[in-house]
Amino acid sequence: MTATEAYRQLCERSKEMSHMGSALGVLHWDQRTHIPPKGHGYRAEVLSTLAGMLHKMATDAAIGELLNVVEGTDIVEHPFTVEAVNVREWRRMYDRAVKIPQRLAVELAKAAAEGQSVWEQARPENDWPRFKPYLERIVSLKREQADALGYEDEPYDALLDGFEQGETAKTLEPALATLTSALVNLLDRIQGSTRRPDPSFKHRYFPVPEQESFAVMAAQRMGYDLAAGRLDVSAHPFTTGIGPSDVRITTRYTEDYFNEAFFAVIHEAGHALYHQGLPTEHWGTPFCGPISLGINESQSRLWENMVARSFSFWQHFYQEARKRFSVLSDVSLEEFYFSVNEVTPSLIRVEADEVTYNLHVLLRFQLEVALCRGDLKVADLPDAWNEKVQSYLGMTPPDYARGVMQDVHWSGGAIGYFPTYALGNLYAAQFYAKAQAELGDLDVLLEKGELGPLLEWLRRNIHSQGRRYLPRNLVKTVTGEDPDPRFLIEYLNRKYGSLYGV
Amino acid sequence: MTATEAYRQLCERSKEMSHMGSALGVLHWDQRTHIPPKGHGYRAEVLSTLAGMLHKMATDAAIGELLNVVEGTDIVEHPFTVEAVNVREWRRMYDRAVKIPQRLAVELAKAAAEGQSVWEQARPENDWPRFKPYLERIVSLKREQADALGYEDEPYDALLDGFEQGETAKTLEPALATLTSALVNLLDRIQGSTRRPDPSFKHRYFPVPEQESFAVMAAQRMGYDLAAGRLDVSAHPFTTGIGPSDVRITTRYTEDYFNEAFFAVIHEAGHALYHQGLPTEHWGTPFCGPISLGINESQSRLWENMVARSFSFWQHFYQEARKRFSVLSDVSLEEFYFSVNEVTPSLIRVEADEVTYNLHVLLRFQLEVALCRGDLKVADLPDAWNEKVQSYLGMTPPDYARGVMQDVHWSGGAIGYFPTYALGNLYAAQFYAKAQAELGDLDVLLEKGELGPLLEWLRRNIHSQGRRYLPRNLVKTVTGEDPDPRFLIEYLNRKYGSLYGV
Repeated sequence: MTATEAYRQLCERSKEMSHMGSALGVLHWDQRTHIPPKGHGYRAEVLSTLAGMLHKMATDAAIGELLNVVEGTDIVEHPFTVEAVNVREWRRMYDRAVKIPQRLAVELAKAAAEGQSVWEQARPENDWPRFKPYLERIVSLKREQADALGYEDEPYDALLDGFEQGETAKTLEPALATLTSALVNLLDRIQGSTRRPDPSFKHRYFPVPEQESFAVMAAQRMGYDLAAGRLDVSAHPFTTGIGPSDVRITTRYTEDYFNEAFFAVIHEAGHALYHQGLPTEHWGTPFCGPISLGINESQSRLWENMVARSFSFWQHFYQEARKRFSVLSDVSLEEFYFSVNEVTPSLIRVEADEVTYNLHVLLRFQLEVALCRGDLKVADLPDAWNEKVQSYLGMTPPDYARGVMQDVHWSGGAIGYFPTYALGNLYAAQFYAKAQAELGDLDVLLEKGELGPLLEWLRRNIHSQGRRYLPRNLVKTVTGEDPDPRFLIEYLNRKYGSLYGV
Repeated sequence: MTATEAYRQLCERSKEMSHMGSALGVLHWDQRTHIPPKGHGYRAEVLSTLAGMLHKMATDAAIGELLNVVEGTDIVEHPFTVEAVNVREWRRMYDRAVKIPQRLAVELAKAAAEGQSVWEQARPENDWPRFKPYLERIVSLKREQADALGYEDEPYDALLDGFEQGETAKTLEPALATLTSALVNLLDRIQGSTRRPDPSFKHRYFPVPEQESFAVMAAQRMGYDLAAGRLDVSAHPFTTGIGPSDVRITTRYTEDYFNEAFFAVIHEAGHALYHQGLPTEHWGTPFCGPISLGINESQSRLWENMVARSFSFWQHFYQEARKRFSVLSDVSLEEFYFSVNEVTPSLIRVEADEVTYNLHVLLRFQLEVALCRGDLKVADLPDAWNEKVQSYLGMTPPDYARGVMQDVHWSGGAIGYFPTYALGNLYAAQFYAKAQAELGDLDVLLEKGELGPLLEWLRRNIHSQGRRYLPRNLVKTVTGEDPDPRFLIEYLNRKYGSLYGV
């Protein structure tokens, strides 16, 4: 077989797998938005069958043979061409998939499904003893998975690599340590300040239909194409790229809390813009996909925080907000801006502000690394958790539900996922600084409600590049520097220094 | 391999195929209810890949081998046991699937997809010459398919059997001929009557939210479990049984026409009750499925027409309707009842009343048989169509769009489907007569809004029986008689004789 023919066959198989992936995407979306309450049990069976089929397709030995034919030929001569990137990613996915023995794959899937289901019941009841053996099982299987995948320094690296290709505990630790001490310092200064936003009006009555129309308007102004997407309601907001012209987002509404739905829509629309900006002519091959969770998160956080939580954004959009929400009539632009940027240490990651959010992530990362090494036992996890919360945030969780049991990730086997949240913030600040340098003062554009130039910059530099680069290479290519926490630290010090006068 | 083991393996394969079928069900449902406008092109690709996978699973030679092991053993000794029914249906599906050569299957799928897409564009433009070659191709391939499947008397029978197992042109023709002459006679009498319902109020303003809440209330009163289902909006109403506890319906709303949404919801809820009443402990095997299109349609038509278009139904529900729709305040129960049962010959099948509806179906059946025989050429179809419309309904279509091009069925390759609509009406009347004989006067129950006993009767006699019997056997088993059009004829003569005084 010629290399050209092998490449063609790989593309064909890749497209079939991506069709199956899209089907799973619709099934998952439906499961979280529209499924009737009694439909869940059977849906889990359908998902398991289809995921099994997809796994079978992905580990077909023929893929390995086709890759052997293509690798080393002219087709992949230049490393950043579409063809070379596809072959690189197919090889990586295939090797990662076949390294996991069938038995382990089945046990992992079972432990994750059970863990998640037990967590859902045990968390509201604060029942750590019930959840503990399931988490122990998961950690033990994940360590086994890490061994099967292989690693150089840390078992953790094998897992992290599945979410953020090319990164390791060692590459992340210095950046995250620098970030941690800067954030603890900034938080300390903020807590010493006497300035506080008015806590009252944020919790006034914001009718849901107006919240929806306002958020949709803002998302469309960002450039989210609703003819190739839609907005639904789900318990936890998410974005799903079902197809090249089908990228859906969700949010959830609280009538007496403006921030919740609005910033979730902006966040998800940020992800959606990335998906809608991918090079869709290559849809179905790895080239047309988000690079990593961290890069994907950089797009959502850039829009959510750097853009939609900026003063200049609200200089333009606050008028629109006031038209819809009469409760804002006695709230000045400055008060509103301060309010949506209030910094308060809290126990729950998903409710955290820009300053404290990364501290939540950092402690999870440190605990995960220790768990994977075997230095920390699951039995000792709650104490270790509480110690770190006390040290970073000055608080102690009063129960497991608001402590070690708060996140869904570990219960479903997602260990190594958390750092991508912090990386997203870090990349976002670095990209934004570069965009600012290239486009001139972005605040001047935002004040005028002109979001197009920024999107166009992201499209050109990031979205349209698909999966050409690994995360670290992309940052270097776009900004001229390796990922560096100083951009995020500078941004946060500037913004919150000014807000809190510290 | 033992027969027991072979049967177990067949069940397992069957469940996997049904999981794939459920995934396709969600994808189709989404395609017709929620998909973003730009998502259609890619969705067609996904559907085609998954349908191809399902076809491959269904024609796997291993199924034939497993069937050979089971057939003739104790497991299938008694013909109406779950096991015997499953083996009977697996054999039938397998044989039908493998008889179609791969080339023909691909050409049929392609011709259907193209035909439907061309029809969608050509119909609004009344462009028969554009559509004609596509229909010619479809008819020619369907004749080839009939030859591949095999038949005794008529090529048509091979196709009809795919929708209504066990029926043939010969078994249907006498019943349909009797029905036709009775309907033509009844329509003639109705047109000679001077009685007419007031045409005005039906088209007053019925706000959509109230239409929805009223229809949902009625569907729930029928017994439709919305915790295992949901109601959405689509261009054409449909029901889809996605899983054992996930049976969804759709409707469409017109603000100035009450009948459209309401009777569509009742119709679809009738289908949904059938799905929700199936023996779900056997889900994933053929036993847990609707017997045929005709039996499925009998459930929707029974609720839509015999129940929800009856005077006694509205004796109970009209009060509820008046509470919601102020425009009914000057309309008496009798006027309302007459209005929702108005008989008017019309050109469009889907808008037809109970009396004329079957005439639309009958003419299509006759044309289909002639097309399959080769007695009628597609080129001569429009004239043949118009002649029959003139003869049955006394009208001539002014264009192709309201004539031969009005239905989606043929464009998608569904030839042999139409008679199941008439059979549904015929079975419905026969079932209803039997329920009436066994439950006492149903009108007395309906007047009181007591719909439970009728549902319970349908559940016991029809729904819970799953696919135990072929359509004709079911009718015989439940009613003690072969399918007979006299029940429908008597029902229509009684109801419309009284309404129109003829």
